Amino acid sequence: MNDFIFQSPTRIVFGRGYVDKTGAEVAALGARNVLLVYGGGSVKRTGVLDRAERSLSTEGVDYTELGGVRPNPEVRLVREGIDLARKKNVDLILAVGGGSVIDCAKAIAFGVPYDGDVWELFERRTPIKASLPIATTLTIPAAGSEASGSCVISNDKLRLKRGVSGDVLRPSVAIMDPELTFTLPQYQTAAGVTDMICHICERYFSGIGAVPVADNIACGLIRAIMEAARQVAKKPDDYDARATLMWAGTLAHNDLCGCGRSTAAERRAGGWESHALEHEISAHHSEVTHGAGLAVILPAWMRYVWPAHPERFLSFAKDVFGLMPKDDTHDADVETITRSIDELQQLFVSLGMPKTLGDLGLMPDDIEAWMGTLHQNRGEVFGEFKPLTLNDARAIYQSSF
Amino acid sequence: MNDFIFQSPTRIVFGRGYVDKTGAEVAALGARNVLLVYGGGSVKRTGVLDRAERSLSTEGVDYTELGGVRPNPEVRLVREGIDLARKKNVDLILAVGGGSVIDCAKAIAFGVPYDGDVWELFERRTPIKASLPIATTLTIPAAGSEASGSCVISNDKLRLKRGVSGDVLRPSVAIMDPELTFTLPQYQTAAGVTDMICHICERYFSGIGAVPVADNIACGLIRAIMEAARQVAKKPDDYDARATLMWAGTLAHNDLCGCGRSTAAERRAGGWESHALEHEISAHHSEVTHGAGLAVILPAWMRYVWPAHPERFLSFAKDVFGLMPKDDTHDADVETITRSIDELQQLFVSLGMPKTLGDLGLMPDDIEAWMGTLHQNRGEVFGEFKPLTLNDARAIYQSSF
Repeated sequence: MNDFIFQSPTRIVFGRGYVDKTGAEVAALGARNVLLVYGGGSVKRTGVLDRAERSLSTEGVDYTELGGVRPNPEVRLVREGIDLARKKNVDLILAVGGGSVIDCAKAIAFGVPYDGDVWELFERRTPIKASLPIATTLTIPAAGSEASGSCVISNDKLRLKRGVSGDVLRPSVAIMDPELTFTLPQYQTAAGVTDMICHICERYFSGIGAVPVADNIACGLIRAIMEAARQVAKKPDDYDARATLMWAGTLAHNDLCGCGRSTAAERRAGGWESHALEHEISAHHSEVTHGAGLAVILPAWMRYVWPAHPERFLSFAKDVFGLMPKDDTHDADVETITRSIDELQQLFVSLGMPKTLGDLGLMPDDIEAWMGTLHQNRGEVFGEFKPLTLNDARAIYQSSF
Repeated sequence: MNDFIFQSPTRIVFGRGYVDKTGAEVAALGARNVLLVYGGGSVKRTGVLDRAERSLSTEGVDYTELGGVRPNPEVRLVREGIDLARKKNVDLILAVGGGSVIDCAKAIAFGVPYDGDVWELFERRTPIKASLPIATTLTIPAAGSEASGSCVISNDKLRLKRGVSGDVLRPSVAIMDPELTFTLPQYQTAAGVTDMICHICERYFSGIGAVPVADNIACGLIRAIMEAARQVAKKPDDYDARATLMWAGTLAHNDLCGCGRSTAAERRAGGWESHALEHEISAHHSEVTHGAGLAVILPAWMRYVWPAHPERFLSFAKDVFGLMPKDDTHDADVETITRSIDELQQLFVSLGMPKTLGDLGLMPDDIEAWMGTLHQNRGEVFGEFKPLTLNDARAIYQSSF
């Protein structure tokens, strides 16, 4: 087991109807005047926004609304939010939404105390050290941003999508009400499921071997997610299955699955190869849902890299899918590993995710544009499980069509 | 899944040689003058205390020593520590040791800001709301107190052993250096392993059924602990196995395994029946190591209560030991459940734990004294998986001989 530092201090307030606790939780943090960030119309349509706002008013907490956060949130709205937060002199940023809304709220929260333009922090990519406090009322289980120290923002002008991190970005409180997700469309549910499984896999397939505590938690979470995802596809208002997805999504990305797996104690575990490859796609095509891109890229990456450490993929096949080689031959190993990747991809497809990038309306001709910004963002070689050259990356993209 | 509130904010600083980071971590919390609590001679003999103190001096942190904490720590030393902490005006309590040392440090930490005698807080058993900050450098993986919000203290005069809890009791930082445990005697290692498995089981066998995320984590942790415990018994300086035990011991008791399993959101999951039964034993016989008592009581409790929810024990048998009934009959279920409890007990015994209370030098005649304080502490009926009357409790004690 490698050395690690782990701190996940977010207060999790999890249960039926808990959206109505938003005001009380925010007030308990000492906030009196918040910027309330949200996305499109769904939180209005479903009444979630109203309920959150009513709970703020009940507690005497003032709020200013900033709506319109889109998937793959963009830096312009972040800048607008920073101006608004300064003008209103808010003391906390409250996100009511999914990962995009939370990430937008985070970028506003650390943009407020920063003197220059907020995008500089994404260019610099050093850990964020100062931020307004952040609270979240989660509506989409997927990104894990409700308890993570990361934040990803797109810059349309530069065609870049960049992440920063820092423990100050971990929200102070996450209010998690699985009932809010009953009406989530199957496509978004499935994209969320894919994203959380990918968050676990990015850590599981880091450069080091077995770490029993982390590995057992990782595989146990994936098994729970798979079972719940199948159930939700059949019965969207199954509370227990929705609750499983929501809680698993948080644990998939709060770094618990990376403890002891990182190459340096203060560094997040894993090479994040699939996220790196997918980010270029959704940076260039903001209509592509991150999780849907991952549903294609993760299996493609797995098929390309498994020969670097087949023993790791054999553990995955056994602990996630109960698959074991039928004998000691190389062929049996190949068959087992291939079947496990097939089963994972088949799960994604059965939930409504694309199987190829073509299914997302993308074309092989798009690859070179992604390669350009990939080079800019990641350099000549990136990744950890198997270091990937740009030619490797291109081959993975090509195999995804 | 039931509603829950979960917050485990302790900063985990985990790795080889990390005892030397004690001073830096304490200084980073802003402490300048600490009370350093430790136990018997082992931290002196092994040089651990010296290293911790040197690291404090390097960072310019003053300290006052309070040694001599015994297993099943007693309230008199807590009172002495409170006086000393007030006299020296310390700003943090640092525990260097195992669960007993940490619990003594915690009681001092919340005793300092309390006006009356500290034992009143144990009699009242309401959540603790105010405390000095606590830091720990862990030397014995077992109690999980390094990240938990609980504290158990004995009162020899009253022959009572009582626990209190509160989120302010969660240490701010836990420095975890598995190398410190290489020299831990096998008996103490095994008692620690038993304690952590029991912490998981107390939650797993709560009054509600399956909760996939919590259950997968619980069973995964137990599997990792069992494998590491067998390895450490063979090779006491196996770093990875020692590290597995240390980290699993923390997660066994930081409430992660209870999320969604508690009957009320703010309440710890589980009925804690085995702990209740064992506490009476070590309250009356302070020479009994808590984990050693549990090694007898946990299987005895399991054998007594499983018919209340056999399906839960069948899940345990499958997910921890890979045991499945060979057919659909009641007999096959009984056989599977019995075998899983046998295997668990056999593990404890193989690690050097007692099989009966007689092995601990106790006598059936002692039972009535335990029953007296059990009644005083728990009333006529206690427990959750199967509510236990005093007659049930007596029967479990009797079956333990």
